[in-house]
Amino acid sequence: MNLNDAIQECWDKIDEGQVATYIPGLAKVDPYQLGVYLFDVANDKRCQAGASRVRFAIESVSKVITLLYAIERLGLTAVEAQVGTRQTGFPFDTILNMEITKETHPLNAFINSGAILISSLIEEEDGQSPFEQILNFTREICNDPEITLDDGIYQSELRTGDMNRSLAYYLKAKGALNNDVTTSLDTYFKQCSMMVTCESLANLGAVLANDGIAPWNGERIISSAAATYTKSVMMTTGLYNESGTYSVKIGVPTKSGVGGGLVAAAPNHYGIGIFSPALDHAGNSVAGLALLELISKELKLSIFKY
Amino acid sequence: MNLNDAIQECWDKIDEGQVATYIPGLAKVDPYQLGVYLFDVANDKRCQAGASRVRFAIESVSKVITLLYAIERLGLTAVEAQVGTRQTGFPFDTILNMEITKETHPLNAFINSGAILISSLIEEEDGQSPFEQILNFTREICNDPEITLDDGIYQSELRTGDMNRSLAYYLKAKGALNNDVTTSLDTYFKQCSMMVTCESLANLGAVLANDGIAPWNGERIISSAAATYTKSVMMTTGLYNESGTYSVKIGVPTKSGVGGGLVAAAPNHYGIGIFSPALDHAGNSVAGLALLELISKELKLSIFKY
Amino acid sequence: MNLNDAIQECWDKIDEGQVATYIPGLAKVDPYQLGVYLFDVANDKRCQAGASRVRFAIESVSKVITLLYAIERLGLTAVEAQVGTRQTGFPFDTILNMEITKETHPLNAFINSGAILISSLIEEEDGQSPFEQILNFTREICNDPEITLDDGIYQSELRTGDMNRSLAYYLKAKGALNNDVTTSLDTYFKQCSMMVTCESLANLGAVLANDGIAPWNGERIISSAAATYTKSVMMTTGLYNESGTYSVKIGVPTKSGVGGGLVAAAPNHYGIGIFSPALDHAGNSVAGLALLELISKELKLSIFKY
Amino acid sequence: MNLNDAIQECWDKIDEGQVATYIPGLAKVDPYQLGVYLFDVANDKRCQAGASRVRFAIESVSKVITLLYAIERLGLTAVEAQVGTRQTGFPFDTILNMEITKETHPLNAFINSGAILISSLIEEEDGQSPFEQILNFTREICNDPEITLDDGIYQSELRTGDMNRSLAYYLKAKGALNNDVTTSLDTYFKQCSMMVTCESLANLGAVLANDGIAPWNGERIISSAAATYTKSVMMTTGLYNESGTYSVKIGVPTKSGVGGGLVAAAPNHYGIGIFSPALDHAGNSVAGLALLELISKELKLSIFKY
Repeated sequence: MNLNDAIQECWDKIDEGQVATYIPGLAKVDPYQLGVYLFDVANDKRCQAGASRVRFAIESVSKVITLLYAIERLGLTAVEAQVGTRQTGFPFDTILNMEITKETHPLNAFINSGAILISSLIEEEDGQSPFEQILNFTREICNDPEITLDDGIYQSELRTGDMNRSLAYYLKAKGALNNDVTTSLDTYFKQCSMMVTCESLANLGAVLANDGIAPWNGERIISSAAATYTKSVMMTTGLYNESGTYSVKIGVPTKSGVGGGLVAAAPNHYGIGIFSPALDHAGNSVAGLALLELISKELKLSIFKY
Repeated sequence: MNLNDAIQECWDKIDEGQVATYIPGLAKVDPYQLGVYLFDVANDKRCQAGASRVRFAIESVSKVITLLYAIERLGLTAVEAQVGTRQTGFPFDTILNMEITKETHPLNAFINSGAILISSLIEEEDGQSPFEQILNFTREICNDPEITLDDGIYQSELRTGDMNRSLAYYLKAKGALNNDVTTSLDTYFKQCSMMVTCESLANLGAVLANDGIAPWNGERIISSAAATYTKSVMMTTGLYNESGTYSVKIGVPTKSGVGGGLVAAAPNHYGIGIFSPALDHAGNSVAGLALLELISKELKLSIFKY
Repeated sequence: MNLNDAIQECWDKIDEGQVATYIPGLAKVDPYQLGVYLFDVANDKRCQAGASRVRFAIESVSKVITLLYAIERLGLTAVEAQVGTRQTGFPFDTILNMEITKETHPLNAFINSGAILISSLIEEEDGQSPFEQILNFTREICNDPEITLDDGIYQSELRTGDMNRSLAYYLKAKGALNNDVTTSLDTYFKQCSMMVTCESLANLGAVLANDGIAPWNGERIISSAAATYTKSVMMTTGLYNESGTYSVKIGVPTKSGVGGGLVAAAPNHYGIGIFSPALDHAGNSVAGLALLELISKELKLSIFKY
Repeated sequence: MNLNDAIQECWDKIDEGQVATYIPGLAKVDPYQLGVYLFDVANDKRCQAGASRVRFAIESVSKVITLLYAIERLGLTAVEAQVGTRQTGFPFDTILNMEITKETHPLNAFINSGAILISSLIEEEDGQSPFEQILNFTREICNDPEITLDDGIYQSELRTGDMNRSLAYYLKAKGALNNDVTTSLDTYFKQCSMMVTCESLANLGAVLANDGIAPWNGERIISSAAATYTKSVMMTTGLYNESGTYSVKIGVPTKSGVGGGLVAAAPNHYGIGIFSPALDHAGNSVAGLALLELISKELKLSIFKY
């Protein structure tokens, strides 16, 4: 497929969305950007088009990475004891389900409460702070040593993070979060502020698609079980309360971020990174998802069909 | 794999569950039953073990069939306008999400409200009542002309169906259900009372796995789009609020019924029918899901890994 | 105070409300009506102004009467075992609280679910249907033998009563409602369709204000305990989820109906009946409540102050 | 009435409750205490019995005082713009209602979110911190210059205040709380840690009962409107989600605290302070409420009857 044509075809979708405004650092981003990077794992081919080299805030896509890192550090069983793999039916920052169901642990790792809890599980080690470990792991799994924290985004997160603070103290009060709240939140705000490109995310997706092995050097970065678990969670909760909607349309495990990024992992086929900052009402990249749907159809990626 | 060994391995799981007691007709069923029927679509092979020939009430597995029939009659677009593909985070008979989110349509086709709405979409045609049409379609897609309504189960459903009546009138009040409530409920109660075997459900799963074409005669029964759509919805909501949990463990689109039945469809590989009537707290067959997990691992069926 | 001046002062409030449209029989009512009837129990004086002789549908004000009748027939303890005296924080036809708190009984007698349950408690007796008994009791406590059922309103209720049907079946499913659903709903729909005047409601309020004794003949109609209980419930839940709001503003136990009626009972002082059919968003008479607030201030009726 | 007999009669109720355990400073309190102080405003008489001179943590009873102080400083209209007078139907520390109804302001001033918001409204003035002002006002309205902050309780509040922190950040995120979260919470934690006696609370109740005028010196401390407003809010929400229950049983505006204190204000009749630290499931003093019910019946205090 011609990626430039695909971008052209989805371009007008940008007008249906809006750049995230509640985080000042994101509100300044030019909405008229759309980029894609495809990593064909089976054939070791890569191609890209559009704004594929632009750096943007990883935001919630970092939840995939921290989840994988927590599984590597603590084991899958320990992580599964901390967060569920159930959907919420509500927006990403709600605690309605926990309040209503009287659960003491977040329903899944990709709503904010679950992601903050996962971040809180990473302990300082060998003098490395939790965030430093996450940053190093991100650089490794994204095969991108240039990933750094953007201080402007981080300061934005700090200034506008009150709902996340509310969620963290809620978890603390319920006995779910056992580490220091401020430190856990700081780790979370920082991991959201890492700057990535479509290529970084395509590499992440490629590792997931390739059963945990980095296709660029054949080394295993994460366990097969971690890769499978995470792809499943991406399918059922990766696009917030619209996960089911896009499961039907796209059929590829995907995670979005309010920075406009998308990572998708078509098992044994493709890792895909997409960037377009205008978001739909649920916080997902509008043009990005349209492009991913097109790619999924062209390349026959839906795991429910092929 | 040796299916008899697999059944043996999962047998003790029966003790962790309980036969559905809220429907008198189901409460009488012997819990110590476990059967399976595998239809290897790719190689056109079939095998079975255990209580694979026992007839049992299809219950919520019928939701898959009625959804497919509604799509065939009305088109996917019309059906998608009536129910979502979003998860609820709550039990199958709740209306919490609709109340809280102020949605006027059910979140998905597999919670009871959504299934009742789908049943209400089937109109009398050529003198055939909605249920007669559904029964005929069930016989066709299950390749089982001996499927009939069990009057004892149906009477049980009628006697204990007050929550379903509440849901139906709720949908009527919100303007979502436009047909007669009593007729729609009667169709729904009857479709739940059809008696099937593991083989019937394996055939249903095989059609779904085979992109809509009956592998036993090569004829298309449902469209490719309907098959893909339905497998996706089965993955994200087929096992009620535990769908995410089993998505991680099993990784195969599956739908359960409180009669103890399970249908699973591994795209392009297998249609699977399982029966074991003891249920977990969410209403899913305990030993049945354990067996399906084992089969998925042995036959490498997880769509998130293979 | 001059009641005509008071009506004049509140007249413009009518424009802030709207006649109930979801019940066709009510939608036809002229919104530009405002009437009041004051029964000074302490001094045995009565006065009226405006549309005080117009008959209108009693609607939810009947919940007060049926509650009193149920207490008289079954005793306060039996009734208290069936419904709570807790507020909901939600609109009158919601079941959110029961769903969330897993209570099996309605939170109070004045939300629809609670009122339907109370109506279901009245059994046929001496060949008199539940509604006939309620009608007779209404005529007695309102000192108005001309109260009859309006068939147009009743047919309207039947046609638009699906949410009430949903609530009734919900209660049946939870084991709270033990009588026949259809009969209970029919009683409820009929009691809502009785036609009263401001004077009827002022008499009802006067009995409540006078500790259960009819001031017009000195005979006890209800027990002192029933009168006190009901006035308290009127204060905390009589104006739906705005009960607290008006408790602050008015400070007199009051119950509203979507027909535009209000009954208020200032203990040992006044029974008040008011009618004005334009409603606020919560279903309360806008001009009626404004008038009641004015009267409460003028006559020094707030039980929190005087 | 003989207060010692009344205490004797209610003593066994203590065994039905439990001392608050979630705040370490309260868990150490001896549950077997019951004290009462009655201030007969009309006749200027006072009497007391039992543990009426024991100092205990004021906890949520302080919400009454801070509400009154905020009204005095900012005016009733300003305060009414910040919190509602609606009930929640849920426990005191929930945010379910705000989440479900999408309100941005707390439903009332006596759930924790509302009380924290009220505390946040008090600004530093003339070099006095918000808490110093509240402490001074408490000493004045309780006519008790010996009220001080108990540092042990305060430290307990700080250590166990995570749910309150969650609520405060939630309010901040929704734009309801405009001051510094940490300062506001500190004020709130401190106001909860003031040590009072039954006499202090009876004096507070006496001011409320006496339309805002201190009966001990005839000086107005709060406006008549503030007194009426607050008594009304006490009636509808003073005993958390059991307010309606006790409205029926007791019929006197009352506010409880988890320290075991109760303040009641029978308009124009009595101010009452009660202390007994064993609490019911909703956080109200068990023996204290039993005693208040007895006193209300004996002294004919129910505002719905007398």
